[in-house]
Amino acid sequence: MRPDSRASDELRSVAIQPNFIIHPEGSVLITLGSTKVICNATIEDRVPPFLRGKKKGWITAEYAMLPRATPERNIRESSRGKVTGRTMEIQRLIGRSLRSVVDLDAVGERTIWIDCDVIQADGGTRTASITGAFVAMVLAFQRMKERKQIAALPIKSYLAATSVGIHPVYGPILDLCYQEDSTTDVDMNIVMNGHDEYIEIQGTGEEATFNEKELATLLSLAKKGIHQLIETEKAVLGELIVESKVETSK
Amino acid sequence: MRPDSRASDELRSVAIQPNFIIHPEGSVLITLGSTKVICNATIEDRVPPFLRGKKKGWITAEYAMLPRATPERNIRESSRGKVTGRTMEIQRLIGRSLRSVVDLDAVGERTIWIDCDVIQADGGTRTASITGAFVAMVLAFQRMKERKQIAALPIKSYLAATSVGIHPVYGPILDLCYQEDSTTDVDMNIVMNGHDEYIEIQGTGEEATFNEKELATLLSLAKKGIHQLIETEKAVLGELIVESKVETSK
Amino acid sequence: MRPDSRASDELRSVAIQPNFIIHPEGSVLITLGSTKVICNATIEDRVPPFLRGKKKGWITAEYAMLPRATPERNIRESSRGKVTGRTMEIQRLIGRSLRSVVDLDAVGERTIWIDCDVIQADGGTRTASITGAFVAMVLAFQRMKERKQIAALPIKSYLAATSVGIHPVYGPILDLCYQEDSTTDVDMNIVMNGHDEYIEIQGTGEEATFNEKELATLLSLAKKGIHQLIETEKAVLGELIVESKVETSK
Amino acid sequence: MRPDSRASDELRSVAIQPNFIIHPEGSVLITLGSTKVICNATIEDRVPPFLRGKKKGWITAEYAMLPRATPERNIRESSRGKVTGRTMEIQRLIGRSLRSVVDLDAVGERTIWIDCDVIQADGGTRTASITGAFVAMVLAFQRMKERKQIAALPIKSYLAATSVGIHPVYGPILDLCYQEDSTTDVDMNIVMNGHDEYIEIQGTGEEATFNEKELATLLSLAKKGIHQLIETEKAVLGELIVESKVETSK
Amino acid sequence: MRPDSRASDELRSVAIQPNFIIHPEGSVLITLGSTKVICNATIEDRVPPFLRGKKKGWITAEYAMLPRATPERNIRESSRGKVTGRTMEIQRLIGRSLRSVVDLDAVGERTIWIDCDVIQADGGTRTASITGAFVAMVLAFQRMKERKQIAALPIKSYLAATSVGIHPVYGPILDLCYQEDSTTDVDMNIVMNGHDEYIEIQGTGEEATFNEKELATLLSLAKKGIHQLIETEKAVLGELIVESKVETSK
Amino acid sequence: MRPDSRASDELRSVAIQPNFIIHPEGSVLITLGSTKVICNATIEDRVPPFLRGKKKGWITAEYAMLPRATPERNIRESSRGKVTGRTMEIQRLIGRSLRSVVDLDAVGERTIWIDCDVIQADGGTRTASITGAFVAMVLAFQRMKERKQIAALPIKSYLAATSVGIHPVYGPILDLCYQEDSTTDVDMNIVMNGHDEYIEIQGTGEEATFNEKELATLLSLAKKGIHQLIETEKAVLGELIVESKVETSK
Repeated sequence: MRPDSRASDELRSVAIQPNFIIHPEGSVLITLGSTKVICNATIEDRVPPFLRGKKKGWITAEYAMLPRATPERNIRESSRGKVTGRTMEIQRLIGRSLRSVVDLDAVGERTIWIDCDVIQADGGTRTASITGAFVAMVLAFQRMKERKQIAALPIKSYLAATSVGIHPVYGPILDLCYQEDSTTDVDMNIVMNGHDEYIEIQGTGEEATFNEKELATLLSLAKKGIHQLIETEKAVLGELIVESKVETSK
Repeated sequence: MRPDSRASDELRSVAIQPNFIIHPEGSVLITLGSTKVICNATIEDRVPPFLRGKKKGWITAEYAMLPRATPERNIRESSRGKVTGRTMEIQRLIGRSLRSVVDLDAVGERTIWIDCDVIQADGGTRTASITGAFVAMVLAFQRMKERKQIAALPIKSYLAATSVGIHPVYGPILDLCYQEDSTTDVDMNIVMNGHDEYIEIQGTGEEATFNEKELATLLSLAKKGIHQLIETEKAVLGELIVESKVETSK
Repeated sequence: MRPDSRASDELRSVAIQPNFIIHPEGSVLITLGSTKVICNATIEDRVPPFLRGKKKGWITAEYAMLPRATPERNIRESSRGKVTGRTMEIQRLIGRSLRSVVDLDAVGERTIWIDCDVIQADGGTRTASITGAFVAMVLAFQRMKERKQIAALPIKSYLAATSVGIHPVYGPILDLCYQEDSTTDVDMNIVMNGHDEYIEIQGTGEEATFNEKELATLLSLAKKGIHQLIETEKAVLGELIVESKVETSK
Repeated sequence: MRPDSRASDELRSVAIQPNFIIHPEGSVLITLGSTKVICNATIEDRVPPFLRGKKKGWITAEYAMLPRATPERNIRESSRGKVTGRTMEIQRLIGRSLRSVVDLDAVGERTIWIDCDVIQADGGTRTASITGAFVAMVLAFQRMKERKQIAALPIKSYLAATSVGIHPVYGPILDLCYQEDSTTDVDMNIVMNGHDEYIEIQGTGEEATFNEKELATLLSLAKKGIHQLIETEKAVLGELIVESKVETSK
Repeated sequence: MRPDSRASDELRSVAIQPNFIIHPEGSVLITLGSTKVICNATIEDRVPPFLRGKKKGWITAEYAMLPRATPERNIRESSRGKVTGRTMEIQRLIGRSLRSVVDLDAVGERTIWIDCDVIQADGGTRTASITGAFVAMVLAFQRMKERKQIAALPIKSYLAATSVGIHPVYGPILDLCYQEDSTTDVDMNIVMNGHDEYIEIQGTGEEATFNEKELATLLSLAKKGIHQLIETEKAVLGELIVESKVETSK
Repeated sequence: MRPDSRASDELRSVAIQPNFIIHPEGSVLITLGSTKVICNATIEDRVPPFLRGKKKGWITAEYAMLPRATPERNIRESSRGKVTGRTMEIQRLIGRSLRSVVDLDAVGERTIWIDCDVIQADGGTRTASITGAFVAMVLAFQRMKERKQIAALPIKSYLAATSVGIHPVYGPILDLCYQEDSTTDVDMNIVMNGHDEYIEIQGTGEEATFNEKELATLLSLAKKGIHQLIETEKAVLGELIVESKVETSK
């Protein structure tokens, strides 16, 4: 039995509260069990140097934890004077994932800054950040549409992420809480779009391995979780995204 | 008339929500109008090098804003690689203020870490941080008492802080919101304890000055605001602090 | 009796030596008892980015101590790789204080850089820096006037700063030397202009407090000290500043 | 036809030159087409703080490119003053991969430092680094055995890594050179052990996606490449690793 | 007898392998006994800010060691976050030496970046870097000539460097290996051009001294070694540099 | 004729004022023409890690310029966040030079920190720093002797430094002022002891060269200047150093 009595293929309760902070163009608080992340989206009217003059937008993400988001206090990265490797990996993952479902040409020469700040952590903060950031980003695009900066939302598909793993006691499970995550060897983060396509697969077995059959089980669990997360997104975003009009180029 | 129709000696609505984050020993969300600050207190069982072996505790504070706590996005200090001068000033002010009402000898060789993270800003973030941090710290001491680490709360007095200023249109006013603060020349932050004594006075007139009579008016406004803030603290902390037993040494 | 036999309202001997270093546009060595600070003013023909095109000048200050300005050697901030919080607070205080007595519109798009380098410290280095920096700055403006860059000195008033405190043995005292400062709980730095107006009040009671009556005594001591410091400035600057012509806007 | 006329499931020519640098305990130059990486392994007789006293070893990796390993000169990370996010990701990947095939308890309180320095780059530097680092690490363990520090090589399995991708023109391909990599949307790095088990799967579709069938094709290509790389390792390491004796715990 | 049986005035075996790395405009591997340095030269079509618009080129050098170029592993400077004083001294020395034999006006507004990366160290890495960098630079100029960017090689003379020292046992010796260098007090690096003129003399006696006669002996040994190194350069560069046409301005 | 009418072999007026700052164990102000350097020596009762337990002392130096020591304001190194290569070279040179005349075994496990702070610069700051630092260090040793920490001054010889150069107009000259230094190609710094022995020779011809005969002339000029500087040191230090007793080991 999992610590919180969940079935092996059961997500924790998930909630996405839109317009959580008043200033950003898009803002949500995503709650996944005890994990809480503030996701803010900012529209900036310029792009990084490597894109200047290319009439194309960019999406970049920053991720941080409050020092006491965790049971033990973490040293603040501004006090360390540098960002850790873990933070950089997560930031790059969030940015790549979001860019995969956006028509950057339609965004124009603008940067969407995504800020994911974990105020309370209980496992799954990077995948909750991706799911919450997607909604915050769509809200920001909606704001751009209201301001007549764009004619339609430049979204190619829904997007969500979850974690799966093989636990020595519980076996293959969906959506690991911290207690499970810290005792699991094989751990995988999956990002998928609304067409059941993979955007990222990051599977790692620190001091462990997994075979082809186990991989198949994990991918199947992840797909189930992502379907449910996308339903939650749809409930928040309502009719904003009409998927029939925006198809991926594949 | 002030932008939000307040009287010149009127505080914004204030609320202090205890136990906001589950992990810290003490945690509150303080809301002052549209300003929202998460204040977490952590107990660490060691002291900085300069206090080792002195059987005395220490209190230190860190302060940060989420990038979109403000109308314009701020660059994250972890990305800059260093903390700004403004942040350092605020951190030092919070730490000094809290230490002034605590019997550090009674704390033992422990450090209380205070983390004030502004998730939404509308002026007065440093004074709201002090007021919220005081409550979070008392909750952490209460936790220590429950764990039998201390026999009584090592608190000498209540503590609160507010801002006052002289506005070119509204004249002397209490508790400036951002719109007022950004158009005011003389700006003063006052920290007081529950005995009507001053702990900090930081008055500054960037490109302006103030005379003795104006100073008296500002101090009087501040005292009124601080009385009300301490009432709010008492409502949250209940009978935790019995002031008759803990008197300042003065 | 104070360690150097001074009366409680007595400044240490003060001297301001103009043209101390040959290269800067304005340069003084200010000596206050055993405290010695080299204050240099540099005129740069451009302003920081936030002021570009606004036809307005800026004044910014840097403060440092030689490693052996103090009884124990301090680690050089260039070796640490960063500036401490204390240094940043002092730098910001010096800059704000000087800007309050200068007509920045009359300076044109120029930055006045103030460098205060403490070569020997015995308490009061930040207030001595402000007083010395004011004279160095006026000398630099005089140089600009000689070069026909400005028609008149853009000075609205004299400016000086001093420290006051409440000592457990000596009671309220003016101009604390290091030995007094390190044993005093309530410590206040006051910056005033030549019209007896306050520019900054920074009062802090680390592990102590002060009441309204004590505040009044401290402010009165500070005013006396500042009157004497401004007399010393006038002796150095002579007839450079004709105050009747330059009034504050209040 | 691929730029170098390879079949879609064909590795570039691979060579592993042992004892390339004289000082390290283990050293190889791995050449994969035009990609050349020096992989050095160092044995240090202590472990990081989090492992002290646990009678267990650790393996950590650093990765860098010479500035002109690439067609355009890269700024040296020591000149930047910090390591990029890409470098951190690669370093963490190499370390995790190696730890997965080593019995860290048998290593004792020692750290194996792996340095992968790319002297010439043409795609696949991170997977070549893993493959080369594995051989350098085994050589270092062999040195430890010769010094009687360990009785047997603490290796649970062979280990190798390769890249696969879906190219818009060439379709699914094995072992991408730089020209292919820079024009491919879906890119996947696979690390496997000698038992056909996965250690890491890192698949990412920047601005693209892949479905389940494509994933299966990519995994199959990777397996073929890894088999060949392990054959090359065996040719270099000879009879050092007797796999029948060292089985993974699965 | 010296550790490797050399005569006191005997260089170690020296080899310069041109076109070692495929990407740079000029690249060599210089081998001096067991010391091996990759020297790459990059042509950049712009100059540092202080030279912009002056129709003149610039040459700048960077130097690094792989962590295991040495018997003990060195911490990577990118991990330290800063470059050591030793590295900076060597970089400045290489740059100055190369600039002394180049007609920078003839280079045009271009920067030649020199990267010297020591992959294996056994003493004399800085002087080997200068000698190898000279050849890499000439190869890069040759590339520029082939591209018709310059009409002739802008080289005023050959250039080479060597080390000499006074060893407590072996007396004055040429080309110190690491074992000699670490037991020698007086150590001197000499850079000379093809006209027997000095470009740099850096002699230092850490805890030792040397007199005029010893200085003369050391200079004589150095000249002999540099003659031989220039012969090696000529063998590699062939008829590229016709010295009769390019004379120093002296 | 040189700009200040000096003969080619004439030093500028030199003065060494002992006990300039009150706090350090040794302190001088050295004035060489318009160049002024405060040299302070601090005794610390411990050594760097590499010397712990070796019963031997260490001497280390730091060097800095005030921002307006120069005609143009320099950016403070603490603001840059790092020390420049030039500063590091000078610091290392000062430390090496001082260590060469001190019996470090006799110092015991102590570090002598030398701080050279240039308050006004007109060329020759590094050599003036060495000469001034030597006197400050001897004063600190004298303090140690008075405190009975050492029985005799652990000084093996006097020490001084000067600069020489070949000027395109004035030819070979001694003790270059800034105007000369900035127009001279060949520039050499010489450090010698009281026995006419060389401790450092650092000759560099940026875009120029020098031959054997010119080298001899420069060394002869330097020796003359150093004789005079040592006379000045002797006048300050009086009979402190009895050279007949302390001979170098050569």
